[in-house]
Amino acid sequence: MAKPLPRSPLAPAGFPDLPTIKGVRFATAAAGVKYQDRTDVMLAVLDPGTTVSGVFTRSKTRSAPVRDCQEKLGADPSASAAILVNSGNSNAFTGHHGQTSVAEIVAAVSGITGAPAGRVFTASTGVIGEPLPHDRIVAKIAELNDGLNADALEAAAAAIMTTDTFAKGAGATVTIDGQTVNIAGIAKGSGMIAPDMATMLVYIFTDAKVEQSALQAQLAKICDRTFNCITVDSDTSTSDSLMLCATGASGVDATGNPEFEQALEGVMLDLAHQVVRDGEGATKFVEIQVTGAESDADAKTHGLAIANSPLVKTAIAGEDPNWGRVVMAIGKSGAAADRDLLSISFGDVLVAEKGWVAPSYKEEDGAAQMKQDEITIKVDLGLGDGAATVWTCDLTHQYITINADYRS
Amino acid sequence: MAKPLPRSPLAPAGFPDLPTIKGVRFATAAAGVKYQDRTDVMLAVLDPGTTVSGVFTRSKTRSAPVRDCQEKLGADPSASAAILVNSGNSNAFTGHHGQTSVAEIVAAVSGITGAPAGRVFTASTGVIGEPLPHDRIVAKIAELNDGLNADALEAAAAAIMTTDTFAKGAGATVTIDGQTVNIAGIAKGSGMIAPDMATMLVYIFTDAKVEQSALQAQLAKICDRTFNCITVDSDTSTSDSLMLCATGASGVDATGNPEFEQALEGVMLDLAHQVVRDGEGATKFVEIQVTGAESDADAKTHGLAIANSPLVKTAIAGEDPNWGRVVMAIGKSGAAADRDLLSISFGDVLVAEKGWVAPSYKEEDGAAQMKQDEITIKVDLGLGDGAATVWTCDLTHQYITINADYRS
Repeated sequence: MAKPLPRSPLAPAGFPDLPTIKGVRFATAAAGVKYQDRTDVMLAVLDPGTTVSGVFTRSKTRSAPVRDCQEKLGADPSASAAILVNSGNSNAFTGHHGQTSVAEIVAAVSGITGAPAGRVFTASTGVIGEPLPHDRIVAKIAELNDGLNADALEAAAAAIMTTDTFAKGAGATVTIDGQTVNIAGIAKGSGMIAPDMATMLVYIFTDAKVEQSALQAQLAKICDRTFNCITVDSDTSTSDSLMLCATGASGVDATGNPEFEQALEGVMLDLAHQVVRDGEGATKFVEIQVTGAESDADAKTHGLAIANSPLVKTAIAGEDPNWGRVVMAIGKSGAAADRDLLSISFGDVLVAEKGWVAPSYKEEDGAAQMKQDEITIKVDLGLGDGAATVWTCDLTHQYITINADYRS
Repeated sequence: MAKPLPRSPLAPAGFPDLPTIKGVRFATAAAGVKYQDRTDVMLAVLDPGTTVSGVFTRSKTRSAPVRDCQEKLGADPSASAAILVNSGNSNAFTGHHGQTSVAEIVAAVSGITGAPAGRVFTASTGVIGEPLPHDRIVAKIAELNDGLNADALEAAAAAIMTTDTFAKGAGATVTIDGQTVNIAGIAKGSGMIAPDMATMLVYIFTDAKVEQSALQAQLAKICDRTFNCITVDSDTSTSDSLMLCATGASGVDATGNPEFEQALEGVMLDLAHQVVRDGEGATKFVEIQVTGAESDADAKTHGLAIANSPLVKTAIAGEDPNWGRVVMAIGKSGAAADRDLLSISFGDVLVAEKGWVAPSYKEEDGAAQMKQDEITIKVDLGLGDGAATVWTCDLTHQYITINADYRS
């Protein structure tokens, strides 16, 4: 990548103030994996008793670190734990060398932090198919361990960026039975580092106490409504990783607590939206609300078909209220639809209903909706009670420039 | 669309010389459906005894003419038949008005040509969601009927174009038991007419005699290996139609004849490739050969995942031998894959094998392959005997310009 991209026009004003999560400390360092003059490794060390959950890419060609993390989920939470993330090299499609790199890093982190190897999780994001210079990372672990600090989440968010145009964080505080529980998380994506795809990494921490298998189930459930409902360009990274760690340091058991779940979903949705807002070349943030489907799954299928359609995404880029392309995407999705029961709105403007353009629709009203930075497309299938909301961005010249014009 | 697009750099030198198909005649006219100063309707009249087969879009929001054609397949072939196609308006998502337009056109064609209404097929391509001005078409049918001519296929190919940059035709001649059988076909797509999607229409004629249900089965089978193996941008039109008509005028029964099938597949593949070569903004013609999959279906799933990946398509546009994106697309396709058994070649250059870059691979060799106009990507999954080949084009700035910058 020749030069840093400008900050996304859809980015929030700045990094948020996040609550301190007792039981986890962070440190960052510049290991020179690929980038110069910036931090590129992040270490998080979690106190004994922290429960750990994670969801990962379903890619059949997923990276060595992802495979290693998947094997370690469910390890006894009584010991301490650690997470080590590097940017600049994804350690994906690096053959047996990939496993070796993971093993070397895990052994070093375990040796220095004292966390058992079975509780050391790693992730790598960046160039694909090049051996990870893991010795540069290993050489920094003692320095990282010495620098651990409870209030370093923003620095951690910056260290895991690749070509993200802004650091992403979100947090929440909940009161349960009069006691305070905190949640804070960071994410990176969908910046791009040639010749790789946009990897999404997300780490969320809470001082709530949640039993490990309950935490895993909760993460998977909320992920389906948040991170699994966003798409930038339909491509799936070999390295996508999302981990949620509950240190329990607040002493408050939040297992099954609805306020905690709601706050956690808020943090995950906020981070997911920030990933879309940093979508490559994005100039519009698009929410697609699908209702009236035969099932929630059908609604999501329709929503993602619309969100992934190049013709819909280019129409949005061109501020063109091109509802015909929305009809097309619904038709091709494979989920149930009936042309004559379908209605489509852009924001509050009813565009089409009963198999045709709405009698009240004026092209200038649709065009005014499309001029906004944040666009809502509403589709009611008129078939049942299934509903889903998905989020995406537009497809612009800048996407082509980022992915085609800059050579690796 | 502001002005005509330049002829695709991937277009053939000119329209081919096609054999005359006895038993079918063509005429074109300028009805002014939307375009000015060009032909926009095509009538084909088929002699009694012609068997008719067709495959159509699977879109749930398919157009009124498509629904009408689907109902009529299988009609008794003893009477004459007719096909009427207009460009400029797709008559899709036009509510009950759509059915009315089809009925009016079918009645007029039937009345003037003498073909029974149940054997009159129509298609429309162009703007979506606007009522079809069918009276302009109806007013031209007598003129069309008077002008029917056996040697007017090139004119027919031109009349059905929307923003195609060249007229598409292909033909073949086969000798069966010492007798000559001819095949000739025309196609349009993937030009674009705002605010519509790229519709593909294909009409193929032969003077062979083929029993109607056998013709339908043969068409569907070959379509799976040809038109169902091409993709420009993964979006599916509401109007895609492919019809194959066998007049039997040669007197030669070609039912089940392997030479006939091979020649027909050649014509269909040629037309399918021409559609890709006219893909919006295309500068590269890409063949993706997948072998070693667990099944042919898996191979096609992998091939289409690669062909539809925006990251693969933009890398090709940028002449970047970015095999990491091919690995990514295989990983996300959902079909079986094993990173350590996979090998990838660009043309004859082995790029990756055994889960990593090939030891023999040099970046400049891959880059040289990418500089060509026609690129072959070979993937061997190393799992079984499943194979498939698919074709696509690259994703360029011009695609964005065509679909975003020109407003409806």
